[in-house]
Amino acid sequence: MNIYRLLISCPDAHGLVAKVSQFIFEHSGNIKEAHHYLDEQNKRFFMRIEIGLSFVSNTQICSFAEFKQEFTQLAEQYQMNWQINDASKLKRVLIMGSKSSHCVADLLHRGHESEMEAKIVGILSNHDKLKKIASWYNVNFKKVAIHKNTKEADMIKMMNAANTFKPDVIVLARYMQIIPKAMCDKYSGKIINIHHSFLPSFIGANPYVRAANRGVKLIGATCHYVTSRLDEGPIIEQDVLRVNHSDSAQKMQKMGQDIEKVTLAKGLQYHLEDRVLTCNNKTVVFD
Amino acid sequence: MNIYRLLISCPDAHGLVAKVSQFIFEHSGNIKEAHHYLDEQNKRFFMRIEIGLSFVSNTQICSFAEFKQEFTQLAEQYQMNWQINDASKLKRVLIMGSKSSHCVADLLHRGHESEMEAKIVGILSNHDKLKKIASWYNVNFKKVAIHKNTKEADMIKMMNAANTFKPDVIVLARYMQIIPKAMCDKYSGKIINIHHSFLPSFIGANPYVRAANRGVKLIGATCHYVTSRLDEGPIIEQDVLRVNHSDSAQKMQKMGQDIEKVTLAKGLQYHLEDRVLTCNNKTVVFD
Amino acid sequence: MNIYRLLISCPDAHGLVAKVSQFIFEHSGNIKEAHHYLDEQNKRFFMRIEIGLSFVSNTQICSFAEFKQEFTQLAEQYQMNWQINDASKLKRVLIMGSKSSHCVADLLHRGHESEMEAKIVGILSNHDKLKKIASWYNVNFKKVAIHKNTKEADMIKMMNAANTFKPDVIVLARYMQIIPKAMCDKYSGKIINIHHSFLPSFIGANPYVRAANRGVKLIGATCHYVTSRLDEGPIIEQDVLRVNHSDSAQKMQKMGQDIEKVTLAKGLQYHLEDRVLTCNNKTVVFD
Amino acid sequence: MNIYRLLISCPDAHGLVAKVSQFIFEHSGNIKEAHHYLDEQNKRFFMRIEIGLSFVSNTQICSFAEFKQEFTQLAEQYQMNWQINDASKLKRVLIMGSKSSHCVADLLHRGHESEMEAKIVGILSNHDKLKKIASWYNVNFKKVAIHKNTKEADMIKMMNAANTFKPDVIVLARYMQIIPKAMCDKYSGKIINIHHSFLPSFIGANPYVRAANRGVKLIGATCHYVTSRLDEGPIIEQDVLRVNHSDSAQKMQKMGQDIEKVTLAKGLQYHLEDRVLTCNNKTVVFD
Repeated sequence: MNIYRLLISCPDAHGLVAKVSQFIFEHSGNIKEAHHYLDEQNKRFFMRIEIGLSFVSNTQICSFAEFKQEFTQLAEQYQMNWQINDASKLKRVLIMGSKSSHCVADLLHRGHESEMEAKIVGILSNHDKLKKIASWYNVNFKKVAIHKNTKEADMIKMMNAANTFKPDVIVLARYMQIIPKAMCDKYSGKIINIHHSFLPSFIGANPYVRAANRGVKLIGATCHYVTSRLDEGPIIEQDVLRVNHSDSAQKMQKMGQDIEKVTLAKGLQYHLEDRVLTCNNKTVVFD
Repeated sequence: MNIYRLLISCPDAHGLVAKVSQFIFEHSGNIKEAHHYLDEQNKRFFMRIEIGLSFVSNTQICSFAEFKQEFTQLAEQYQMNWQINDASKLKRVLIMGSKSSHCVADLLHRGHESEMEAKIVGILSNHDKLKKIASWYNVNFKKVAIHKNTKEADMIKMMNAANTFKPDVIVLARYMQIIPKAMCDKYSGKIINIHHSFLPSFIGANPYVRAANRGVKLIGATCHYVTSRLDEGPIIEQDVLRVNHSDSAQKMQKMGQDIEKVTLAKGLQYHLEDRVLTCNNKTVVFD
Repeated sequence: MNIYRLLISCPDAHGLVAKVSQFIFEHSGNIKEAHHYLDEQNKRFFMRIEIGLSFVSNTQICSFAEFKQEFTQLAEQYQMNWQINDASKLKRVLIMGSKSSHCVADLLHRGHESEMEAKIVGILSNHDKLKKIASWYNVNFKKVAIHKNTKEADMIKMMNAANTFKPDVIVLARYMQIIPKAMCDKYSGKIINIHHSFLPSFIGANPYVRAANRGVKLIGATCHYVTSRLDEGPIIEQDVLRVNHSDSAQKMQKMGQDIEKVTLAKGLQYHLEDRVLTCNNKTVVFD
Repeated sequence: MNIYRLLISCPDAHGLVAKVSQFIFEHSGNIKEAHHYLDEQNKRFFMRIEIGLSFVSNTQICSFAEFKQEFTQLAEQYQMNWQINDASKLKRVLIMGSKSSHCVADLLHRGHESEMEAKIVGILSNHDKLKKIASWYNVNFKKVAIHKNTKEADMIKMMNAANTFKPDVIVLARYMQIIPKAMCDKYSGKIINIHHSFLPSFIGANPYVRAANRGVKLIGATCHYVTSRLDEGPIIEQDVLRVNHSDSAQKMQKMGQDIEKVTLAKGLQYHLEDRVLTCNNKTVVFD
């Protein structure tokens, strides 16, 4: 028996859950876990269902493809945004990094130890620094330098390079460059960034310096989907760390690396387990 | 339209969700929020469904009583432990306390300000100290002293006194006495205690002294259902607080009061919102 | 033996600690606990020293007044901002509130139970709502209404009313009015506010609504000194609470009350124990 | 100017701080940061002082060796346990691991990126699994297998192997073997272990299984000094992570790895920065 994860977001409608669960029942599916949530303000309904499915000869349908095809009709009827994923099929993750390696090393180690449900297919960077760690973990490394004067053209090269990895998810692990709108659109809901502040505090550059200057008592990190509106995409996960007066901006930055990597890993894990749906600029996370 | 909360725990079975949601649909119910969880180890299925129901003349059924009666058949078929509660009907909460007032004052204030979905029907204590605060909040106060030599008889008096309040929930807000087995059984799953340690650390008496002696760096509190096995009932909620070397056992106790009252309030709130199911000695909390 | 707390902030100088500790030694003081911190950026040195002092006939000095007077010379030599407080003398706390009572009730209960090192001398409000709880805790209540059209005059009345309480500390427990500059200046470093957001996120009005709209995963509270620059005074303490997609702005507001009252109590406690020094717009908290 | 860290623990005595700070002043030292703490119960005084020292020709003393030698007299007078360390001299860290690599990889990466004030001199293991990661980070790897039947002899081999690294600190990064008493004694206060539970909860084996069975809502990790009394050495740091009913023991173990590595790194960092003193079975951590 395989596990599949069905994600649905649609306008609220009477009998929706009954229809969907009846469909699963009639197709010999077994519900393992489910979360339903009605956003009253937007009148949208969200579902995540983990289904055990066996395709044996004597059942109505014989393949996952058939299951999907038949579900399409129901989906259209209720105007669903939906997807169903085979839990055993690992998502292809492309990591984009720059010079700092704490998040990259952490993700590579999690991938290597199968702590994370993912197949890391490559590292794409604008510097050479991550090449060595990539090679050690036996992960493809590609460099596309981004020059100030040729930024636009370089970014197109970068995007093309990213495409060659056929990624299901792109993780910006402190990539430090603004992703062009075309790429944000192409991979909408599939690019995940770690921002080194507790957004919306200290949006933009140098958050640790500004945090130190403001004298905050907690610093944080934010894992969010990337949209063309910088630092304003839907937030997946946030966490914080206590600091005090004796921590300089520089020390906060070092301390912050721990919360960055943990928060990124947690947000990414939610995405990999198909636990995140978006609604306007917010996420519904069924954890 | 009223909101009802349906809680189900039963052996796992094929088509269960379909059956339940179909039933709700056919009885004009609208699902607002739902959580389903399959405990693979125990092969038990857990559901919490928030349903919007309107009983208008042209629907199949005309009352909540009829809804419940009809559901009973389905429930029997699947061997369900189940309950359905009207969200607008506040649960009757009896607080049992002793000398310390931090948890009691916190609960009374939350009740008074309608921060908590509850009707606090009384305070039952073995001392007079809480009488004044009860009267100020206009809550019934009853004292049943517990004497060493007549403990058994006193406990029966106490239990009878508790019964007169017709409580849906009994909260032990630092009551400091062991509840007799008969009462644990009568109110099984309905007595909630706050233990002043991060269980199973420092089970038993004087946890703060023992925490200070052991030099722990975090202290905690545990909100759990009371069973006849002292300090071992199903845990609903836990939380912790950072301490350091300069905090004496006495200071830890003062600091711990904050985490005790917040943890009790949170665990109780879960119960009041029908978010907690139990499975053997563990809880499923759908938050 | 009495405990005194010496707080010093001054330009860094060679031999400073030696001078101060020698002075204490020569005046028969015994150091119980001390924290020293050099702010390298501002070249300022901060000290907090807890001293045990006995004034017995055969020592050099016979009174706390003499001790202070003699220390003044040393203080001048090193250009110190300093104060020394008798730990057994409770600070006079004036609470200013408005309609919401969660912070006020929490502080009153802590004062009443001696959980807090303070003497609560009164409640000053622009509404009647807190009158009842004040009277129950036997605390003076004074109302000064603030009208839109006569705000300036009303604020002067309010300030005069505050003065009559001879407060050492003024706590804005959700007072919801902007304190006039004259009052900020008069009580500089002595007015403590609780802001219902994790500053600098959601500065200004309606933070919970804006937090819900932004879809943050943690909400927070900030306890800070009040200056004439709204929401920008030195931060004493901050804390956060996890929320999720199903928490509406309204629910966040209720949940946030817990973190508000705990954060205010903690920040105030630091102040009451003379643990906070300020440096420009930041605090040094020796906890 | 170099930074030195002076750590002192001694019986409380009148004038102690004055004497020490006077000594520092007279030897041209400049105090950067200091923490003093009197343990009233044990009548012991603890100090940590960060001192800036320049050894120039015209000062009284010309070398750190002389400084230390002269301080010895004062130390003897007050029966001090003391040490003074050059902050620029990195401590030699030996990592002992077994099969699981999450803590080891994390420490190696921190060492490599200079996030941690340490020189990692080697990895000692009873298995081959960590060899590859050690070689990649260019760190010496030594294997000493521990066989059931020859455990005692093997442990002596292991201890000899450890000695060859001349470690200042030994970190048990999930080493999973009990360290013999002789080694505990030889490296008293220098062996740091990470225990995969929130001690004293779930002392001993399989803490995650037992945590899952008990249904706790938080799991944790404990970083402590190793003594010959298993799992009972002085605690340096602890932290926790929220879990829920749907997290199996196996999943908790994966989640717990994050809190293990962060807690170990934090505890080790305190030790490396000379922030930890011990008093009986407890630590004083000046953070």
